Amino acid sequence: MAIQEEPHQHFWRPLLAEAMGTLIFVWVVLGASTPGGPPERTPPPVLQPALAAGLAAVGLAHCFREISGAQANPALTMAFLCTRKLGALRAGGYILAQCLGAILASGIFYLVLPAVVFSYNAGQALGMEVLSTFQLTFTIFAVEDQRRREVGELGSLAIGFSVTAGALAGTFSGGSMNPARSLGPAVVTGIWEHHWVYWLGPTLGAVLGGVTYEFLFASSASREKLVA
Amino acid sequence: MAIQEEPHQHFWRPLLAEAMGTLIFVWVVLGASTPGGPPERTPPPVLQPALAAGLAAVGLAHCFREISGAQANPALTMAFLCTRKLGALRAGGYILAQCLGAILASGIFYLVLPAVVFSYNAGQALGMEVLSTFQLTFTIFAVEDQRRREVGELGSLAIGFSVTAGALAGTFSGGSMNPARSLGPAVVTGIWEHHWVYWLGPTLGAVLGGVTYEFLFASSASREKLVA
Amino acid sequence: MAIQEEPHQHFWRPLLAEAMGTLIFVWVVLGASTPGGPPERTPPPVLQPALAAGLAAVGLAHCFREISGAQANPALTMAFLCTRKLGALRAGGYILAQCLGAILASGIFYLVLPAVVFSYNAGQALGMEVLSTFQLTFTIFAVEDQRRREVGELGSLAIGFSVTAGALAGTFSGGSMNPARSLGPAVVTGIWEHHWVYWLGPTLGAVLGGVTYEFLFASSASREKLVA
Amino acid sequence: MAIQEEPHQHFWRPLLAEAMGTLIFVWVVLGASTPGGPPERTPPPVLQPALAAGLAAVGLAHCFREISGAQANPALTMAFLCTRKLGALRAGGYILAQCLGAILASGIFYLVLPAVVFSYNAGQALGMEVLSTFQLTFTIFAVEDQRRREVGELGSLAIGFSVTAGALAGTFSGGSMNPARSLGPAVVTGIWEHHWVYWLGPTLGAVLGGVTYEFLFASSASREKLVA
Repeated sequence: MAIQEEPHQHFWRPLLAEAMGTLIFVWVVLGASTPGGPPERTPPPVLQPALAAGLAAVGLAHCFREISGAQANPALTMAFLCTRKLGALRAGGYILAQCLGAILASGIFYLVLPAVVFSYNAGQALGMEVLSTFQLTFTIFAVEDQRRREVGELGSLAIGFSVTAGALAGTFSGGSMNPARSLGPAVVTGIWEHHWVYWLGPTLGAVLGGVTYEFLFASSASREKLVA
Repeated sequence: MAIQEEPHQHFWRPLLAEAMGTLIFVWVVLGASTPGGPPERTPPPVLQPALAAGLAAVGLAHCFREISGAQANPALTMAFLCTRKLGALRAGGYILAQCLGAILASGIFYLVLPAVVFSYNAGQALGMEVLSTFQLTFTIFAVEDQRRREVGELGSLAIGFSVTAGALAGTFSGGSMNPARSLGPAVVTGIWEHHWVYWLGPTLGAVLGGVTYEFLFASSASREKLVA
Repeated sequence: MAIQEEPHQHFWRPLLAEAMGTLIFVWVVLGASTPGGPPERTPPPVLQPALAAGLAAVGLAHCFREISGAQANPALTMAFLCTRKLGALRAGGYILAQCLGAILASGIFYLVLPAVVFSYNAGQALGMEVLSTFQLTFTIFAVEDQRRREVGELGSLAIGFSVTAGALAGTFSGGSMNPARSLGPAVVTGIWEHHWVYWLGPTLGAVLGGVTYEFLFASSASREKLVA
Repeated sequence: MAIQEEPHQHFWRPLLAEAMGTLIFVWVVLGASTPGGPPERTPPPVLQPALAAGLAAVGLAHCFREISGAQANPALTMAFLCTRKLGALRAGGYILAQCLGAILASGIFYLVLPAVVFSYNAGQALGMEVLSTFQLTFTIFAVEDQRRREVGELGSLAIGFSVTAGALAGTFSGGSMNPARSLGPAVVTGIWEHHWVYWLGPTLGAVLGGVTYEFLFASSASREKLVA
């Protein structure tokens, strides 16, 4: 199956980028604002969501800047509209996509995760690991893609900042995003409880993140390699 | 109405830049030093204003470096004067502009906000959202402008750092700067209290920030597009 | 003894890079998650390991990106495998190397350090100083090597971030990594307890880090200078 | 008086750079590790000195990398010696200079400041402001100098990080480094106590920092402008 750049992609892909960008941004900020766990309900220090938001924004700029401008913010889109840098139709589409992304992120965060069947904590942790690693891997694939085309700017920083943003967002599950990081202590301490979560979650998130980037957002050079 | 580069702009624009830069800087630092809200009056950890100051400085360097050097600090201006990098008249003008900007920022911070009529908390929050988003949008427009002229350096970082600086500055209003980020949780949790603040404030701040940059500070290439 | 690039190095060096990268990453995260010392057992704020992980990732990207891609994460390797950017054999080798590195880091962290004979605290501190400084020096040598070949990107940041990551990782030993930083206060306050630790540990770690980089990972230009 | 590049400067200037670099580094770390003030004696969170160290290192790399390599660390110098990147005589000189710088920083920090006559708190605050602003201005002059020669890398970041490092180091005096930032609240709140400290300290520090850089470390292009 060969993928070709269809004309309608020029319309839909930026909308999808704005929806996904806002989803990731809102989800990171919500995750980083969560109290540390059921026993202690004190909110985290203000610095935590503030840093998570800024560091995630650096990552998102790498992922979506070339596609939609990575605005992820209706207020910004209004400013671009009022200074004639964006047409009314496109601005309207962006704002709608941003609102959908934000509502979806909040829905996942507040509703879906607690409702997972098998185990409350393991299910939440799994969901957080999937999303944190999705966000990280997506950024890494975008950085690699840009490096291949020598467009990239500050790739290592974007990746490092996504690691911190993901770790802050996934606070109450441990924010591992990395099976090896969980395997080491398990082997040494002998504590294997919920260990599968830290293999399944990050791997699922990473594979989904990589495949999503390659099929939906990668420059054609990178995509052709995939479907060859 | 066509805007042309007038000779007197070479004198007034750097002064305006120093005043605005110092206004934004002082306001961010004051905001990030505020106790978290009326119930808990404990001051924030030292790290919060320190990081807000440094990250805001990175954003301001992008906004005003080409125009005035983005000193925003009378002590620095004195150092440039003493090393003959700045004339006495210009240095005097800079210091005056910086002091005016700092006094204005403090005035807004300590006096105007609490006096807003309709609702103490909503009014303060609105003011903080307007200023936080103004600062963020201003930085984004400066980065885009520099990218267009290929002058930009580290644009994504400046934007991400402005997000964190704005979030720290706007701590007690939530530092949203983004209607979508507030809409998502409102839809899911059904809590809509003061929701209009998070649409009006950021949108007002972003439009003001964008228009101010375009009309007063943008390179002519960018400005012509606006007034075409 | 002249070192030449042997064919088998193309197979083993990336594996070694992944093992070492994961070892350093896991060790930094474990160190930054440790409670501050025996008297106070409260865990550190979430921000600490999250920042340590992200900042260490920036440093590792500089050290190993050219050699193995600096994935240091089985989930990422799976994503590269699923998008056909990495062959099955190599991916398997990477994951094995990552798991070994992570287990080794955890083993050093949980088992070896407390068992040191002469003194519990001094031994732990020595070990932490060796590893923190090893990590820092390794990054500095990689940055210098890349600067010599004009490949480097953001070297100063990678070094500064490694300082912070190492200081967070070595929290309970003081995270000095620098004999001068320990000498100054000792001279002035007259407190010389365990002072030798802060000369032996950092020096051992730095020399090991520098020699390891030069002999195992440096570009040939840099290595030739060493063995001339 | 015309300044010319004398041969002996090639020997002494790197030594001076190492001494000054270590002085600034050790002083920033000591300042950022100080408890917040006489009433509350709880040490600051670990993150504070760790971040101050890393961010100061980024600034120092800009200031001294071209002159001495900005090692500021005897352990690093040993690693460069052992890998034959530095001769024995020069390495010995560096280590001596580093130790002197560190002892001087500690001496200023522990002994000189409390002994100031007129007022304990105002004197300490003045000293901290002078040193914090010295460090910041020195970095700004180095960045400007490198920009003029198009050598600079990441100048805005180095400046922003120096702002944060200086603010963390000067915690207990407020870490203002900026008269305007202190003037604004004073005008609005009417609290003028010790206000002169925040004009004298930063201005003294900035002028000293700027003049020191220009006379001792600037590239000749920049220095000639000064003495013309």
